[in-house]
Amino acid sequence: MSNFSYQQLFSFTKNIFLQIGSSEAHADLAAKALLSADLRGVDSHGIARLSGYVRLWKAERVNATPAIKIIHETPSTAVIDGDRGLGLVVGPAAMQVAIDKAISVGTGWVSVKNSNHFGIAGFHAMMALPHDMIGIAMTNASATVAPTFSKERLLGTNPIAVAIPAGNEQPFVADFATTTAANGKLEVLQRKNMDAPHGWVQDKDGKPSTDVNELKKSGAMLPLGGDKEHGSHKGYMLGSIVDIFSAILSGANYGPWVPPFPAYLPMPLNMPGEGIGHFFGAMRIDAFRPAEEFRQHMDAWIQRFKSAATAEGFERVIIPGEPEREIEKERMQNGIELLDPVINDLQQLAAQFNCSL
Amino acid sequence: MSNFSYQQLFSFTKNIFLQIGSSEAHADLAAKALLSADLRGVDSHGIARLSGYVRLWKAERVNATPAIKIIHETPSTAVIDGDRGLGLVVGPAAMQVAIDKAISVGTGWVSVKNSNHFGIAGFHAMMALPHDMIGIAMTNASATVAPTFSKERLLGTNPIAVAIPAGNEQPFVADFATTTAANGKLEVLQRKNMDAPHGWVQDKDGKPSTDVNELKKSGAMLPLGGDKEHGSHKGYMLGSIVDIFSAILSGANYGPWVPPFPAYLPMPLNMPGEGIGHFFGAMRIDAFRPAEEFRQHMDAWIQRFKSAATAEGFERVIIPGEPEREIEKERMQNGIELLDPVINDLQQLAAQFNCSL
Repeated sequence: MSNFSYQQLFSFTKNIFLQIGSSEAHADLAAKALLSADLRGVDSHGIARLSGYVRLWKAERVNATPAIKIIHETPSTAVIDGDRGLGLVVGPAAMQVAIDKAISVGTGWVSVKNSNHFGIAGFHAMMALPHDMIGIAMTNASATVAPTFSKERLLGTNPIAVAIPAGNEQPFVADFATTTAANGKLEVLQRKNMDAPHGWVQDKDGKPSTDVNELKKSGAMLPLGGDKEHGSHKGYMLGSIVDIFSAILSGANYGPWVPPFPAYLPMPLNMPGEGIGHFFGAMRIDAFRPAEEFRQHMDAWIQRFKSAATAEGFERVIIPGEPEREIEKERMQNGIELLDPVINDLQQLAAQFNCSL
Repeated sequence: MSNFSYQQLFSFTKNIFLQIGSSEAHADLAAKALLSADLRGVDSHGIARLSGYVRLWKAERVNATPAIKIIHETPSTAVIDGDRGLGLVVGPAAMQVAIDKAISVGTGWVSVKNSNHFGIAGFHAMMALPHDMIGIAMTNASATVAPTFSKERLLGTNPIAVAIPAGNEQPFVADFATTTAANGKLEVLQRKNMDAPHGWVQDKDGKPSTDVNELKKSGAMLPLGGDKEHGSHKGYMLGSIVDIFSAILSGANYGPWVPPFPAYLPMPLNMPGEGIGHFFGAMRIDAFRPAEEFRQHMDAWIQRFKSAATAEGFERVIIPGEPEREIEKERMQNGIELLDPVINDLQQLAAQFNCSL
């Protein structure tokens, strides 16, 4: 394990995106989007995936010079064709369209097809904050999750992010997979050789399991709730809504046909759409009420929840986004620790592109 | 227990709303909205609550002749003041504004203050379906739910409904509380004198409990997920988003200040807003892609999920909205069974207003 400064990792990442042919602006944006995951503590979605993106490019599943374009629109909506670009640049382009439409008619809603993995949903949703807007971002992903009662994997972890500005308080930023636990948490337990809690995974026959390696044995992750008795049908509904907004509205692939991230996996057969789908929303605060009033009440909301009486053993109630912001501050100051396998992976990339980490 | 035809219950309910002073149109709409819960099998939110609405009116917490008005708007948004009206009529009025805005600019988004309980969220979301639109409805509610790590009740069950049209298939209609289990399910267990499963409730100190009567002992319901290990912070985030969209955007009450449904409970002190808040959305399908294309792919989505291989012991994967539609069909044909306490309650109402059940 070694420590790297954000700036060092940013320069390296940007350079790799330049090497595969991205424009200066795209490489800059893609590096920023990707590393926002490392900064916010979502290590599974950050620079650890850089070589995966490069392999997708080599497999010609990612286009480094996409012509991202609006193919359908109304004053408050658009559908964007990502031209197989990196989701890391298609996402921000689409979110910008949502923001522009919100400036013009109050809200903007953009569904995207023909894209790829966009990093963490929170990065895109948070783009709305400096505009005094609420930002929403979601994406589908390749199927690892079984709907309630099924033994088949039909949904991705399909995350939802919602970023809401406040006044003196820091913004409210929710960013969560619609499963009981994100895949990254399973990977942590795999490394520690520990069991998963009940309700995280099931085996290939749909039976409850605590084996953290079930995904490698044709098992599945479970929707938020875990089982029917604990509301897994609600997690299944949420994941489905993300899939439909991201792909049925846009013309992307959905359900079991969403392309996988690892380039060594074959593409699904008989794909009904193009690429991966995302969905973005932006709502101008002052399209509802004066922004100053909103900010005052949002501050009051946050303060009330922060000061809630806690159950024994817990220090205080967390406002969504707080832990990630603390990690970001700490890592910006003290650098980002990377695990040896990740460093090795980056060094191989460096060798491949004749640059250094 | 006795059986009543929908028409009989509808006439009775409409008459009661007329008796408290609602207009013909409002009484008709309120009865339709309220009884949609009984038809869809959500017995806790239907006619069983009629006397509760009447008590709210007697306590002057409900205004039977509200002047519902738009107080702020942009082409795609509005804030509506419900003038303390029945949520059962304020909700549809607001949803209609969302639909009208979607006709004009692609989508419409309406936040509502100064309203009351609106019945089931699904009723409002489904109003969008005949317009070839996706409908979204959510509401906050009086605090019964403790955020993750807290022993205080700060959120309501804050449901979310999303209705999505299909082609030959029936529409996708998700309608769920953002808690592990809806309060109605606790009431069923109370009647049967059974324990609650783990993860549904906690006691007044925030300790896990299986006592179905915890809510009467200052305990709390738990957010979807149940505990941190099973993602309760995600249920807490969802409930919070519903609260903020419904109340901070509109100027309604939020968190622990949302007014209670039972009229015998005192109103919260130092309320920061007016009444209960709702949030509605309507998105025109053809604001994204030709409706015919959307319908074809939505049918394909539904068929794929319907035909998913099941885990042992389960017949098939359920599409959100299917069970409720089957109950509605059956009850429209064969009538609605009411429990004796509900019938007694309605007979008392009948006596009070000199009419008959």
